[in-house]
Order: sequence, then C-alpha cells, then structure tokens
Amino acid sequence: MLLKFDQQGSLFEQLARALKREILEGRFGADSHLPATRSLAAALGVSRNTVIAAYELLRSEQLVAARAGSRTRVMNNTVAPAVRASRISIRAQSRFSTRTRRLRSVTLSGLKAGPQYNLWYGDALTRPQLLASWRRKLVAAAVWAGSRYPSAIGLPSLRSAISKYLLRRRGVSCNPDDVIIVSGTQQALCVVARTVLEEGQSAVIEEPHYELAQHALLAHGARLTSVRVDSEGLVTAELPLRPPRLIFVTPSHQFPSGAVLSLARRLELLKYAAANDCWIFEDDYDGEFQYGNRPLPALRSLDVGERVIYSGSFSKTLFPGLRLGYIVCPTGLRNDLCMAKALEDLGCSSVEQAALAAFLESRQYEKHLRKSLAELRNRREALLDGLSRHLAGDIDIADSSSGMHLVVWFRRLSYRGLDRLVAHALEQGLGIYPIHPFYQSPPPRPGLILGFAGLSPAQLHTAAALLAGCLNKCRRPD
Amino acid sequence: MLLKFDQQGSLFEQLARALKREILEGRFGADSHLPATRSLAAALGVSRNTVIAAYELLRSEQLVAARAGSRTRVMNNTVAPAVRASRISIRAQSRFSTRTRRLRSVTLSGLKAGPQYNLWYGDALTRPQLLASWRRKLVAAAVWAGSRYPSAIGLPSLRSAISKYLLRRRGVSCNPDDVIIVSGTQQALCVVARTVLEEGQSAVIEEPHYELAQHALLAHGARLTSVRVDSEGLVTAELPLRPPRLIFVTPSHQFPSGAVLSLARRLELLKYAAANDCWIFEDDYDGEFQYGNRPLPALRSLDVGERVIYSGSFSKTLFPGLRLGYIVCPTGLRNDLCMAKALEDLGCSSVEQAALAAFLESRQYEKHLRKSLAELRNRREALLDGLSRHLAGDIDIADSSSGMHLVVWFRRLSYRGLDRLVAHALEQGLGIYPIHPFYQSPPPRPGLILGFAGLSPAQLHTAAALLAGCLNKCRRPD
Repeated sequence: MLLKFDQQGSLFEQLARALKREILEGRFGADSHLPATRSLAAALGVSRNTVIAAYELLRSEQLVAARAGSRTRVMNNTVAPAVRASRISIRAQSRFSTRTRRLRSVTLSGLKAGPQYNLWYGDALTRPQLLASWRRKLVAAAVWAGSRYPSAIGLPSLRSAISKYLLRRRGVSCNPDDVIIVSGTQQALCVVARTVLEEGQSAVIEEPHYELAQHALLAHGARLTSVRVDSEGLVTAELPLRPPRLIFVTPSHQFPSGAVLSLARRLELLKYAAANDCWIFEDDYDGEFQYGNRPLPALRSLDVGERVIYSGSFSKTLFPGLRLGYIVCPTGLRNDLCMAKALEDLGCSSVEQAALAAFLESRQYEKHLRKSLAELRNRREALLDGLSRHLAGDIDIADSSSGMHLVVWFRRLSYRGLDRLVAHALEQGLGIYPIHPFYQSPPPRPGLILGFAGLSPAQLHTAAALLAGCLNKCRRPD
Repeated sequence: MLLKFDQQGSLFEQLARALKREILEGRFGADSHLPATRSLAAALGVSRNTVIAAYELLRSEQLVAARAGSRTRVMNNTVAPAVRASRISIRAQSRFSTRTRRLRSVTLSGLKAGPQYNLWYGDALTRPQLLASWRRKLVAAAVWAGSRYPSAIGLPSLRSAISKYLLRRRGVSCNPDDVIIVSGTQQALCVVARTVLEEGQSAVIEEPHYELAQHALLAHGARLTSVRVDSEGLVTAELPLRPPRLIFVTPSHQFPSGAVLSLARRLELLKYAAANDCWIFEDDYDGEFQYGNRPLPALRSLDVGERVIYSGSFSKTLFPGLRLGYIVCPTGLRNDLCMAKALEDLGCSSVEQAALAAFLESRQYEKHLRKSLAELRNRREALLDGLSRHLAGDIDIADSSSGMHLVVWFRRLSYRGLDRLVAHALEQGLGIYPIHPFYQSPPPRPGLILGFAGLSPAQLHTAAALLAGCLNKCRRPD
C-alpha cells in the first residue's frame, strides 16, 4: 500500500484521504481490515494519535466500522467503482466544446501588471472620485442584500433608470419593460444568439471585429460571414445576397477601426434587415465618448421595423469589473430574451444593480461621463500630439473623434518588422498591440490599436516618444 | 399626417421623434419638405419654439437639411426601409426559444411582498449582523473597482479561499485551479450542459426535482429521464439501462424531498457513472445546514473516477441576491468549462468576489454559518413543535435533519382540498406551497414544502396554528 499525501489541511486528514482513495479504488477489497493503528503509525513515522484521528474520520464518513477490541473493518459496500485512468486529457464532450477548443484561448488581462506604458485597449479610465462615490452607493445599496431572489431580468429601479438615461443621451425611446439587465455585452450577445440563432445558421460580423464577440458566435455554432468596414463603417452594399439571421455591428464607433456608421448606411442596413428578416445586434460599447459634434443617436432610434437588439454596458464607462449591461429588446423578442437570461443565471447581483440605479438616478453617472470625457479628450490630444511630433512621417492615423482608442497604420513596416517592434517596445516598458488579430485576414500594412484611457497625458507623450525610438531601432538595426 | 407623441422626455423631443417616424416610414417621400414651423405649431397648438427645436434636433441627426430662407428639406437618403407590421407576437426564432416557450414561466419572487406568514422555500435567513459585516467587506473590496478586466474564471484569492473552505467543511480536496467562479448554481448547470451535453442527448434528474434545473436542461435540449427518490435518496437501482450523458443530483439534501443519499447509493452512483462514462452534476446547495450528526462529506470527495462536477453557491447561506457560486471541475473538463464560462460573460463582478474572498479568508463566513445554523435549528424546532401540537393526526412529516425546509404529507386531503387550503390560507395571511409541482407526475397524496428560514420561531408557531385552522375549515365546510 503506497499512501499518497496531498499536502492539504492537517496530517490526519491527509492520511484519511489517502486511505479513502485506497478503499475506493478497491485495494482493500471487501471485508478486510485497516492496519493496526500502532503499526501504521510506525510505518509512516507519524504519531499514533494521527492514525487514530484519521480512522475516526473515516468512521464518521461510514467508510469503515470499528468495534471495541477488534481491528477497524473496511465496510462491505465500499467495493470499488470501476475506476478509469486519470483523465488529464479527454476528447471534447460536445460540439460546443469542440468549437471552443478551436478558438484562440480567451485573453483577458486578469489583473496582471502590464508594462509601465501600456497602450492596451481594454484599460479603462480610473478616477479616484468615481471609486469614492461608487463605494458610497454600494454601502447604501447593501440593504438589498435581502432574503429574496431579485427579479431575474433586473431590478425595476435600474431598468427604469436605464430607459430614462437612453432617452436623454442616446435618442433611444423604450419602456423599462423592454430593458433586461445582463452581466455585460458578452452575455447580451450569448443570450441573443441562443434566442435567434440556430447552430449552423449564419451571422454577419464586421471586418475587423471584436474578437470575443466572434468567439461567442463561433462557439454557439454560427457560420460567420465578415463584411468589410471603410471610413463610413460597414459597407452595406457588400452584405451577403443570402441573408444571415443576425448582424453584429458597432455603429457608434466601429471596433476596432474607429469608423462611425454614416446615416445613409444606417438606413441601408435597417432596410436590408427588414427586407430579409435579419436581427441586428447593436453593440453601443462606447457611444458616449465623442469629441467632435453631437454624436449620432443609436441605430436603434431609427429602427421603426423593430429589427434592432440594442445593447450597452458599463464596463467601458465605469469599470470593467462591474459586470452589468443591458439589452433593449424588440417587442417580439422580449419574452424569449427574458427566459434566456433567467434560465442562464436567475439574474444579476442585486446590490450592484441597486447601487447602479442610484448612481444613474442621481445623475452622478452623467456627471462622471462629463468628467471622463474631459479627461479622455486631454489624453487623446496628448497622444495625437505626441504621435504627430515624433512619428509624423511614419504613420497614418485613423481617428474618428470618439472612443478610448485610435488606430495607426505604418507607412513602411513589414509584419516581421512589426513583431520586432512589439518585442523591443516591451523591453522598453512600452505595451503596444497590433490590430491585425482583429481581422480574418491581415490588412496589407501593419497597424496598432492604441488605447489611451489608461495613461496620463504626460505618460502618453512619453509613450509616443518611446514608440518613435523603438521604430527607428527596429527599422535600422545597428 | 398624424403625429403620435410618446410622452417621454420634453415636448420638442417627442415632436422630433414623431416626425422622425414619419420620415423613416416614408410618409414624406424623398426630397419633400417639413411643414413651415409656424403652421405646424398652430396645427398642433404648441409654441413655434418647440417646433424649431424639434427641427434642429432632426437636423443634428442628419435627417433633414435647412438652408437660410427656404423650408426644411427631408434628406434624400431617408427613403423608408421596408417596414413590417408591429411585431408584438412572432414565432419562436430558434429551437431554444421553442423549448423555453413550452416551460412554465420562471417564477422568482422578484422582491414582491408575500403574505405575512410566508413558508416560501426560497426565503433565506436574514441576520442584521451579516448585513453589517458584508457592507464592511464591500467597502474594503471596492478598491477592486479597478481599470482592468478581472480573470474570467474568478479572482485567484476567491478561488483559493473556496478550495480551502471546501477542504475544511465538505471533505473536498481540490486545487484552486480547479475552481471556477460562476454566478450561481443555475449558471454552473448551464455552463456544464453546454460543455458535456448535446441537444437531444439524455440527462437524468431526480423525481422530485428542482424546477429551474429541469427548465435549464429542457431549454438546452436535453431529453430528461427522471429517477425516483426514496428515503435514502436517488434509487440508483432504477438508473436507466441506456446511460445518460449527465446526472443531476442533490446528494447532501435531496431537493425537495429532503432525503440524504446513503453511502451505499453514493458508491453505486459513482460506479454507474464510471462504467457508463456519465457526468454527475452534484448540486450541494445547502449541505452546510445539518442538525444531527456530522454531515456526510460531498459526493465529490468519493469521486476517484473523476466523474463528478461539484457545484455550490452562496445564495442559500448568505443571501440570494449575491449571484456567486462555483464549479469544482474534474481535471479533464477544466479547460472546456473555463472557456464556456469566459465566453458567456467574461466573468463575475470583481468587487463582490473580493468581498467574498475576504469574508471566507477571515473565517467570518464560517462564524456566520454557525450562527445561522443555531438560529435555523430554533426555527426548525419551532415549526416541528407547532406542527406536532396542532396537526399531529393530519400529516406525516418527512424530515432529514438538514436544510432550510421540511416536507409534510397530508393523510386525508384530496388535491381539490389542497387547492382550497392554499387559497384559504392565503386569505389568512399564510403562504403555503404544494410540493407536487416539483414532480413530473403528482404523488398520490398532496404535500407541502415548508421553508422555515424566513420566519421567527414565534411566527412559525403561529403559522402552524393557522395552518391547522385552515385545514379544519377546508375539510369541513360549514
């Protein structure tokens, strides 16, 4: 008998678990006995009390029986179940898993410390004042840590606050009953996919596109068609002749190219969807952050044909760890979407929902947006300024006056040069991220997606200078 | 032109939206003009400034163009998309929705006020002290409202705290890497179903069973076989000859019957699963609350064949609005389950995860469990006492010395009598809930599932007396 100790918890528990494994794997057989406590203690070099305690634990779990004066007996009914070899690696158990195994593994920062000057897109603006006021809202909302399950589609106060907010800020007129609270855009898309899309049916995504949306659709079993984006956004003239069931778009600020879908294209898209019975998933992930004119209202505000499923989240505007977003349902899909959300997880956290509702109702959210926008404007200008000062001849900037990132294209750099550049930059403490992974097939010239929300204006200036230095180094190896 | 005002927001916005709808639905035609502001104002009985503001809003949205000295022109490109009739009711858009439409609609209390004496099972014990200490943890954890996405499978500190807790309290030895944080048992089951179960494949559920688990499996497309439960829990001898892919069980405290799965049956079940390559979903929803002997460790602790997917949640032990739970993965399924969770929603809220990790690490959670257990014991005894005092000859009590509810069976009551009883009780401020909805086919005698966590001992005494009074009334109509 070779006992394996797993080093977790106290010694007698480890011994009990090791013995339990022997019993369960049938190495004692039925009706045999455990070793005498004294001899096992001696053999293992542990105290006899440890062995006694382990036996007592096994007895309490009914795996062995002890009678005064006789040795501890292994119970009859513990004949081993047929045990298989350790299953470190097994084949995918469903088509869903087969598909997810084909995806690049999901990359999320996971709170790891990045390089000093990190132009990672996902980093959000942090304002210490936000943290303080959010904390106050949480404390006040903790009273919702009540004894009952909240409504699975969201707290009524939050749904009402969101519908009012959408009317004020995004031109979307909807009833609180049409709003479902979900744990972010990713869940919104999954809930929608289950509701309107069959495995094997087709969906359109933009090219380039947000990788995790593509992953969610592929995992669901969608056949994906990508449609090109130009400076006016999705090229609607290239929508497929055979209509898809679902079209995933980011009209306010195409991710990652930055283009804003023009009004003409918006109307084209709606016409196409209405004529072909497609559903449009509108991901309005950062429509709030606009630096130029008044932003265009959401696509949904033009949607008289009820084909648009509108989705927003608070990850980009508040903080990514707040997993709350919403779906504004077309009337015909409302009940189905509610069921899909309810059956998935019975609803989102009530305390955070209540805190967010209070934050929205008190207009602190809009105050926060104004302050964020002012700060993001500074950061964006610092980055643009740094880029034009240090890299004017080397790059073209694709900038749409909105959002938390911009895209630059290198005029003279190969993809191999890009790899060297990224690696070299990282050594210098500069985190830069190529844009080509967001494309199905890489664009002719390499480019970067530069997130500017996570660094101060001074840091962004330095980052631009660093980038210029690295580029020079990588182009002319000395 | 008949303008419809939607009564949301200010008047000029309502007017702009009404005009927009007319434009989008093509009632102006291309290149026509909006009415002169003065005449529209007169026709509607609103001020001219309101009309001017509405036109200005439409202009900012590029739907109309104004030139000095000429009337406001409807833009060329706003020819109407093909609009369908209002889609209040549409056919189900996927097999998933077809299936969810067949389910009874999901009933969650949604924070509605219940009757005064509510023996609803889902109500949790509320302790004001818990609220106070939870609030402190939340405030401390708000620092996690950071700028980055947390890890999609959960905060490392929480996963580690849970693995230590499971070792101490449930006999489950696992690595923090095997723990995935999900938003509750419902999501755990959905994630597992997507990972191991194909549409059309079979799953076993207990009879009786937890309704929302059944719903989630049916929505996923599982063919369900139910296997009877007796006083030793699932009757393993009646597991189907044709093995299912997944078996959903509640071994610690069968829901709702209350039976504890015996050790012999546990081993039978594991043997069956190993021999037939089935996965077992162990829902350990209230295994902590045991009033008699030391509780049996979790089924997972016997699982040398790595067939058990263990799931727990904090809804029953802390509060239902905290949507956090966990999966302990068999090694072979770990990566697939991680992907399924990550793709669904990119992970759970980081602030609440951090608060919970601190709550577990500081052992406040176990202190809370001890206090809850003491209080639940009082409540349970009050209910048992009240029932035996007032209803001794009328009911049989099925009690397993654990959990937050017990089941009573009426000796002499028809199902029609039960309906009268429930309705009459509600009039008296007493909420009672039949058990037969948890069965595929109703048991021969009617019974009730009596949750005792939400009422004080005194209230439970009163509730028992009320129940007896109602029963007398319903049996002998005067």
